[in-house]
Amino acid sequence: VIDFPNNEAFLARPSYQKLCKLAQNPYSLTAPSPQGLSPERLNRFKASALGFTLLYGTQRIDEEVLKTLEALAHESELISQFRAMVQGETLNQILSWDSEKRAVLHTALRNLFPPPSGNTIAEEAARLAAQEMEKLKRFLERCDQEKRWEEILLVGIGGSDLGPRALYLALQAYTLPQRKADFISNVDPDDAAQVLQKKDLSKTLVIIVSKSGNTLETKTNEALVAQAFRARGLEPKEHFIAVTQKGSPLDNPQHYLESFYIWDYIGGRYSSTSMVGGVLLGFTLGYTPFLELLRGAHDMDRVALESTFSQNLPLLSALLGIWNCHFLGYPSLAILPYSQALSRFPAHLQQCDMESNGKGINRRGEILTYPASPIIWGEVGTNGQHSFYQWIHQSPLVVPVEFIGFRKSQWGKEIEVEGTSSQQKLLANLFAQSLALAQGQTAKNPNHSFPGNRPNSVLMAEQLTPYTLGALLAYYEAKIVFQGFYWNINSFDQEGVQLGKRLANHILEDFRQINLNPQDKTCFQKHPLTSALLQAGGLISE
Amino acid sequence: VIDFPNNEAFLARPSYQKLCKLAQNPYSLTAPSPQGLSPERLNRFKASALGFTLLYGTQRIDEEVLKTLEALAHESELISQFRAMVQGETLNQILSWDSEKRAVLHTALRNLFPPPSGNTIAEEAARLAAQEMEKLKRFLERCDQEKRWEEILLVGIGGSDLGPRALYLALQAYTLPQRKADFISNVDPDDAAQVLQKKDLSKTLVIIVSKSGNTLETKTNEALVAQAFRARGLEPKEHFIAVTQKGSPLDNPQHYLESFYIWDYIGGRYSSTSMVGGVLLGFTLGYTPFLELLRGAHDMDRVALESTFSQNLPLLSALLGIWNCHFLGYPSLAILPYSQALSRFPAHLQQCDMESNGKGINRRGEILTYPASPIIWGEVGTNGQHSFYQWIHQSPLVVPVEFIGFRKSQWGKEIEVEGTSSQQKLLANLFAQSLALAQGQTAKNPNHSFPGNRPNSVLMAEQLTPYTLGALLAYYEAKIVFQGFYWNINSFDQEGVQLGKRLANHILEDFRQINLNPQDKTCFQKHPLTSALLQAGGLISE
Repeated sequence: VIDFPNNEAFLARPSYQKLCKLAQNPYSLTAPSPQGLSPERLNRFKASALGFTLLYGTQRIDEEVLKTLEALAHESELISQFRAMVQGETLNQILSWDSEKRAVLHTALRNLFPPPSGNTIAEEAARLAAQEMEKLKRFLERCDQEKRWEEILLVGIGGSDLGPRALYLALQAYTLPQRKADFISNVDPDDAAQVLQKKDLSKTLVIIVSKSGNTLETKTNEALVAQAFRARGLEPKEHFIAVTQKGSPLDNPQHYLESFYIWDYIGGRYSSTSMVGGVLLGFTLGYTPFLELLRGAHDMDRVALESTFSQNLPLLSALLGIWNCHFLGYPSLAILPYSQALSRFPAHLQQCDMESNGKGINRRGEILTYPASPIIWGEVGTNGQHSFYQWIHQSPLVVPVEFIGFRKSQWGKEIEVEGTSSQQKLLANLFAQSLALAQGQTAKNPNHSFPGNRPNSVLMAEQLTPYTLGALLAYYEAKIVFQGFYWNINSFDQEGVQLGKRLANHILEDFRQINLNPQDKTCFQKHPLTSALLQAGGLISE
Repeated sequence: VIDFPNNEAFLARPSYQKLCKLAQNPYSLTAPSPQGLSPERLNRFKASALGFTLLYGTQRIDEEVLKTLEALAHESELISQFRAMVQGETLNQILSWDSEKRAVLHTALRNLFPPPSGNTIAEEAARLAAQEMEKLKRFLERCDQEKRWEEILLVGIGGSDLGPRALYLALQAYTLPQRKADFISNVDPDDAAQVLQKKDLSKTLVIIVSKSGNTLETKTNEALVAQAFRARGLEPKEHFIAVTQKGSPLDNPQHYLESFYIWDYIGGRYSSTSMVGGVLLGFTLGYTPFLELLRGAHDMDRVALESTFSQNLPLLSALLGIWNCHFLGYPSLAILPYSQALSRFPAHLQQCDMESNGKGINRRGEILTYPASPIIWGEVGTNGQHSFYQWIHQSPLVVPVEFIGFRKSQWGKEIEVEGTSSQQKLLANLFAQSLALAQGQTAKNPNHSFPGNRPNSVLMAEQLTPYTLGALLAYYEAKIVFQGFYWNINSFDQEGVQLGKRLANHILEDFRQINLNPQDKTCFQKHPLTSALLQAGGLISE
């Protein structure tokens, strides 16, 4: 059983203390070669697994920092905690306080090669996941035979939307002919209106995704979509399927063609490799590519769990992030994929990371005495170069960067202009940015000076395929989980969303009352602050 | 003529000094009503113009801070500098150093109601803008008559892409039937491949946007798109038009059906109301809605220039941002529109703000001794609530927030579920978040506690229309410009992108050489660092 340290023990660890000292004088990348950056250095700080290579010579570390980070990983029991998670230990909890008290088993969703036999909760979870995969396979075979559906429409929000959306966009190059997907997430009625007006509903399969079956946005949008079906003379229950927990209001054969299941040990933000992503990706790509995605994720889970320190990509990446955020004090991280297909991948990681690790208490319920995870943001390159890169090069503040790149494009539709291909131009820019941020430049004109020493890594792979994407997703999931273990927080709950929900319900009560009787002013007494805000915003009159 | 202070004078200003003191003990929003938040307070800290209302009672300010911020605006000559900009003074420069030395005249682009007469550079700029508008009008009339085009494809990047894209997405509800737009920006060949595979090129008008005509990405993508036209037996010059500076390589009637002009006093990130946005928006929405957008922008420019302090929305917003970033020390700002139509508006503002104000030197060329502008990021609500809001509510770090909302939806396609409409649910959530962030919550269970005191504002308007969108765009442009004036930086150059470009050219040289002769290893001697990176990344072999 894992020990959750208190704040005092956390701060007392020898490796923690040593890193605080080392951080006072971090390695400088700006000295002229060979002191700062050198070919040897770039070649030394490099790790590889599953065809991925992580280049981190452009981080502000040296051998001693790296060794101490390894010690920190050991003293923080990062690998043992990861193992405990994979084996189904109750890691979603706060000791001595009312909390969710659940296992965390998204890794079981892809433990299918083959599914394990045995009786632990983790093994059972893998078998249940395999059952859903079987159900999906049969469902997709029916789709192929019946040819009723050409489009799929996912109604969900947050973890039930961003992951599937980011992965779908990432694999457009692999989409089956005559299959496409759309998404409705926002409770803003313009989201649904915009999407519905261009769809041929008669050929559309609708997938309602909500673990609890009670998500406000999803319920409302389901009603809106159902209304649109009826308005075109179509029966919703002939088109709608559900992805939900067993026994939820959505688990109802009278209203849905089919229900696929998820479980309480799968957090929404970690659910992309469950049926939450599976139905949509299986429909648009086919069953086998989705299975390949799971295989990539599973293989990366094993890298996280089993590989030696020097080749453990997610662990290295987690520790470099901790070095930048916790010891060097940089409060944000930019994730910049040089791949248009990953256009929404940073948004998914923003969710997965910030919802997991944006916590204010440790796992014993003590208020944190140190900042935890950074703000995560990012856009694809080279686009970002023409947007916020000015800031990351020359602002007095510093943003660490994680670049992602691929040697080959997905579509292979290139053009050679001025002696180089588009993909070469893309990669030339990626590597140039990594170097420019690290190295900086001195110049007589102060506006041509670059301070450099802006830490960054480059993660390279051969090509963005279903397998690679699965591995990339699992790489980030494992990185986030490692960091949460280090920060000694519960990465798996999200109590921080409750207060907003409660206040929204007050306001909705007021709206409901006013809708019934515009003269009824009792809400002004009952909720004076929210009423004042609504008045000030011109939403209700005095 | 505006005086650019040196760092010493900047820090010596009485209002600056006073704000530093006031920031040591900022107003607490978490005390129980009426000390912290109260209906009176929410009603007091409110400003209105052009149908917009800015609610800022949930900022950590009091009357004294507000008064001192007004003094700061005065001592920093923010309005005079704005006036100088509008009148065409050379504000894009660094004193005593080689720099662009240009006027900054995006406000002239919409000074068309009516265009002024006179001989200043600003008046001339407005007349040139009016000429392009005339040209656009005739061009669009031809499009209507000839009915050749149903789709428009914009090839551009950064300022030539994000602005038009964000505005186009924001106004989908107003798009003409049978008109749609696509965008290709990234040098990643998968961007073009993805977009081109689904287009009917025979009915597609292509607009190549590059001020210089030399942008690497745009040149490469233009060639790719031209190749696709030829592959389908179509002649590019029968489909392509250009938006560029007079005399650039794109200003060539032999290759383009038409050229629309921009000028050196329009920065890319401020060019959405020039023909950069105009051609695409005129084509998809019609000429009159685009003119309405310009009218909204012009009206907001006048609010920024002429209204009293208490109703000057962009100035207030700029000062509140300065208070949060510079005095309270928060290094980032989240912009969270509760409107799905504004899905890419935060990305556009991220560009406009961070490229403008992510600078390391002041306008005298001195290295800044204080941090300038924050990181800008954001996604639409309610989606973000299911993503990173956990972090903004409970992380030990603090992110100030700007909410944007509209009383009415665009499409008016609502549904009532449980007694309230979708739009009411959307707005209930917006206001609940504003209040929850400010007020926080104490609870016995530490995981149900919220520290509160998270500063935020809400900007409300009636509905997102072309006019409102133009005003909203100009509101942010003015806010950014005011902040840059305050920080005493040149918000109008982008020298920070040059180093990356130079290094990318080295790498492209190496690729070119290797493409010609894979055995030629001279690049290893010539560029040892970049060669080492490319080797480590598996792009070239030793």
